Amino acid sequence: MARRININADMGEGWGAYDIGDDAALLTIVKSANIACGFHGGDASVMRRTLEAAGRHGVSIGAHPGFDDLWGFGRRQIRMSPEALEHQIAYQIGAMLGMARYAGQTVTHVKAHGALNNMACVDRAYADAIMLAQAKVAPDLIALVMPGTEMEAAARAAGLRLGREAFVDRTYEDDGTLTPRTVAGSVIKDPTVAAERVVRMVLEETIVSRHGTPLPIGFDSLCVHGDEPTSVAVARAARAALEGAGVEIVTLPQMLAQPTVPAA
Amino acid sequence: MARRININADMGEGWGAYDIGDDAALLTIVKSANIACGFHGGDASVMRRTLEAAGRHGVSIGAHPGFDDLWGFGRRQIRMSPEALEHQIAYQIGAMLGMARYAGQTVTHVKAHGALNNMACVDRAYADAIMLAQAKVAPDLIALVMPGTEMEAAARAAGLRLGREAFVDRTYEDDGTLTPRTVAGSVIKDPTVAAERVVRMVLEETIVSRHGTPLPIGFDSLCVHGDEPTSVAVARAARAALEGAGVEIVTLPQMLAQPTVPAA
Amino acid sequence: MARRININADMGEGWGAYDIGDDAALLTIVKSANIACGFHGGDASVMRRTLEAAGRHGVSIGAHPGFDDLWGFGRRQIRMSPEALEHQIAYQIGAMLGMARYAGQTVTHVKAHGALNNMACVDRAYADAIMLAQAKVAPDLIALVMPGTEMEAAARAAGLRLGREAFVDRTYEDDGTLTPRTVAGSVIKDPTVAAERVVRMVLEETIVSRHGTPLPIGFDSLCVHGDEPTSVAVARAARAALEGAGVEIVTLPQMLAQPTVPAA
Amino acid sequence: MARRININADMGEGWGAYDIGDDAALLTIVKSANIACGFHGGDASVMRRTLEAAGRHGVSIGAHPGFDDLWGFGRRQIRMSPEALEHQIAYQIGAMLGMARYAGQTVTHVKAHGALNNMACVDRAYADAIMLAQAKVAPDLIALVMPGTEMEAAARAAGLRLGREAFVDRTYEDDGTLTPRTVAGSVIKDPTVAAERVVRMVLEETIVSRHGTPLPIGFDSLCVHGDEPTSVAVARAARAALEGAGVEIVTLPQMLAQPTVPAA
Repeated sequence: MARRININADMGEGWGAYDIGDDAALLTIVKSANIACGFHGGDASVMRRTLEAAGRHGVSIGAHPGFDDLWGFGRRQIRMSPEALEHQIAYQIGAMLGMARYAGQTVTHVKAHGALNNMACVDRAYADAIMLAQAKVAPDLIALVMPGTEMEAAARAAGLRLGREAFVDRTYEDDGTLTPRTVAGSVIKDPTVAAERVVRMVLEETIVSRHGTPLPIGFDSLCVHGDEPTSVAVARAARAALEGAGVEIVTLPQMLAQPTVPAA
Repeated sequence: MARRININADMGEGWGAYDIGDDAALLTIVKSANIACGFHGGDASVMRRTLEAAGRHGVSIGAHPGFDDLWGFGRRQIRMSPEALEHQIAYQIGAMLGMARYAGQTVTHVKAHGALNNMACVDRAYADAIMLAQAKVAPDLIALVMPGTEMEAAARAAGLRLGREAFVDRTYEDDGTLTPRTVAGSVIKDPTVAAERVVRMVLEETIVSRHGTPLPIGFDSLCVHGDEPTSVAVARAARAALEGAGVEIVTLPQMLAQPTVPAA
Repeated sequence: MARRININADMGEGWGAYDIGDDAALLTIVKSANIACGFHGGDASVMRRTLEAAGRHGVSIGAHPGFDDLWGFGRRQIRMSPEALEHQIAYQIGAMLGMARYAGQTVTHVKAHGALNNMACVDRAYADAIMLAQAKVAPDLIALVMPGTEMEAAARAAGLRLGREAFVDRTYEDDGTLTPRTVAGSVIKDPTVAAERVVRMVLEETIVSRHGTPLPIGFDSLCVHGDEPTSVAVARAARAALEGAGVEIVTLPQMLAQPTVPAA
Repeated sequence: MARRININADMGEGWGAYDIGDDAALLTIVKSANIACGFHGGDASVMRRTLEAAGRHGVSIGAHPGFDDLWGFGRRQIRMSPEALEHQIAYQIGAMLGMARYAGQTVTHVKAHGALNNMACVDRAYADAIMLAQAKVAPDLIALVMPGTEMEAAARAAGLRLGREAFVDRTYEDDGTLTPRTVAGSVIKDPTVAAERVVRMVLEETIVSRHGTPLPIGFDSLCVHGDEPTSVAVARAARAALEGAGVEIVTLPQMLAQPTVPAA
């Protein structure tokens, strides 16, 4: 029975005069932060501030590269050459490593953002671009991916250490993919529902599809969101329920050092 | 009598579909390249391409951070908080280190670009921002500065290894500052004049002001430009004249490992 | 005795996924909105939304051009060629006119933003660039300026219709300039203090310096801010006090059509 | 037999310190210029310079809006909400109208750029976004489109005046679509081949597919490119051959005022 799990969330996505998201709340909920690298959000000053805040909270740190699309917040699908994408990922990881050194912090994982992550889950060329960049610039970092996707395959092919995430506030189809957002109920907004579901997921070491089918998908981390009031409430309820069920919330490196959820 | 000198130039300042400068020519003239880091010019793909080209030519590599001002090409003076500037420099150095690792190259110095460099030469807060960022992110790199400025003072205060540059195509005042561009003749456009002058500077280990005064300014590197046809011709003539006078053109690390021009 | 006055505020400064400021509150307080044009803030969708909201509230609309500095939110001083600045202002006014036509709204004034406005108040070349752009692209619009500055002089020289603004939450020196923000008390944060002061300013048709000196500065509009909770509270109190004193709050075109505060 | 035709090309796509394309050559070849509006290329100063140059050459002027993708030069496919796209197009057309007024020039058409145009030719929602923006901001302008596409359908639905273009240096399939660039020979690089083909197209008022099939596609304008040395040579040869065959090269408004090529 699983007694430990990681929780991760995106953070540090403000830019210049602009704030976004509730990082202060999330830092009390998660144990790993995916910190934006300046392309879809997050400038050098935001990165530094977020790195230091994560450090103070004992939250492990990931580089969170995205498309070069500040206006779209990295949420627009962009078709580009995988080679140029690879360079952009290398650049963003390098920038994050530099800011982490500047802030006296350590980066331990990489997770792709938004539309880039979504596209790369089904596009092997994009997935390879991301993983090859990571393998060349930061081969010791964990690649945090959605299991069962091209991202997992590319990370394995690149020889990277793998972290696998499941979603606290999204339902799954029987084939292990996320239910499209256009389907009613695909985003879980009720904290009680999310809390019960996530405890079962962790204790039973399985994801159950929205049709009730147990899915053979292992996971090391639970992804929560901070975009909206409901998402923070859902995340907070999930963590409280997990702790109430005796589950320890640990950083991603701690989780992988002693995994309790078997791989698929 | 000096028998070795470094020559440096800015490079890799294209961006996206845009090319600028004559990097191919400069790579046959210089032994150190200041490569743009993505803010005033230079994207991840340009950085990778330029890093590899520098490596192939045995040219040592410097990070060349500038203002976050692509439109102005880093040539506009911008007033900002030194703290935010420090973060931006750390970010750019980190990005360059990441791209260098990606491209299998080594970064050995940092030189500030354009208006940022100009402002920091007379503004200690800006100079400190640059040097503190470098000291935190890449303390082993050489800080390539104009001697006798706040940049030199800040680099020394930050405990950084110092490289000092003199200009091949600019005249000096008696106080060691550059003659303002508004003064006729301040930019040397005649390759023959520049070549004779630079040979004398290197062999006599001194800079002579436009009024004929020898200046007690030591230097390790000669800065050339590639913006215009005349500047490339001037740079090429300077190098040929130096080699004709028996001066070896070496990389910045080679120069500093065995300096022949004494410090001021 | 003045019985009418305009109140203006900056608005529509969000961008992409980013919101900023409390436009909803400001639209219930002001009668003229200075809407960002996409350079220091405000994208096409934000512009459209803000234009329509202003129209619904009977708030007259101004183009609010700024420096091409999204990161700095137009608050960083940038030194550039006045000619290029003139082009950038023309571009932004044109974009706003286009979006207004798209949204079925009418633009009636132009007010420069942030550091650009501050610099142009004391730099005639910048002031001329702004006013010449407006004179060529939209000669019928009101130029809303701080009286007694180079901006007023340039607007008059360009033959533009002039609106003059005074600040609700800033104190003045005896020479009519704003007290620098570094001086304690220069920003009025107490709604009661601001309200009493602004009623006196409007009814007595004069600005009183922080040393008690009445200043011979006419004004047609009161500028309020929405950046912080205190600034909105100050603005709301000022409007309520003015209405309590029998002063009608009107749009800038209404104010200028029947001015009650004499020019300096 | 057709005796008149328009030739158009993209222009004014530099930005800041960056130049691109050979506008000087193109202005001696074409009679209509599609001038970039600041999003995929072209800043306010470039727009002004290009507008004035077009005016001097008697070349009619079109707004050439693209994706908000300077790095990708508008050549990357971006998936975004058609509503936000509509706003971005309105903004760009407005900006161009403003700069034209500034420069004393008149805009007479709109043509979408690059990937945006390509996507909109097959995506009615994108095509409608472009045409609705134009219909609201500049309903009197000609919509220059590729005939037989969703762009033509959307322009007709929006009630816009239509200009139809054929390509000088691209071959067509039997269904009237362009031969994909991946097919060998799809881009015509031989000036002689292009010249003979274009004269036949204009004189016979028909496009012939690469398989020899005459296509019932009417056109009012020939699109040429200036990206590469061969494209300029092809364009120049095409114009010379047309003039040699007695065809007058006219502006797009002149062409549409007295069309000689019947609509499909």
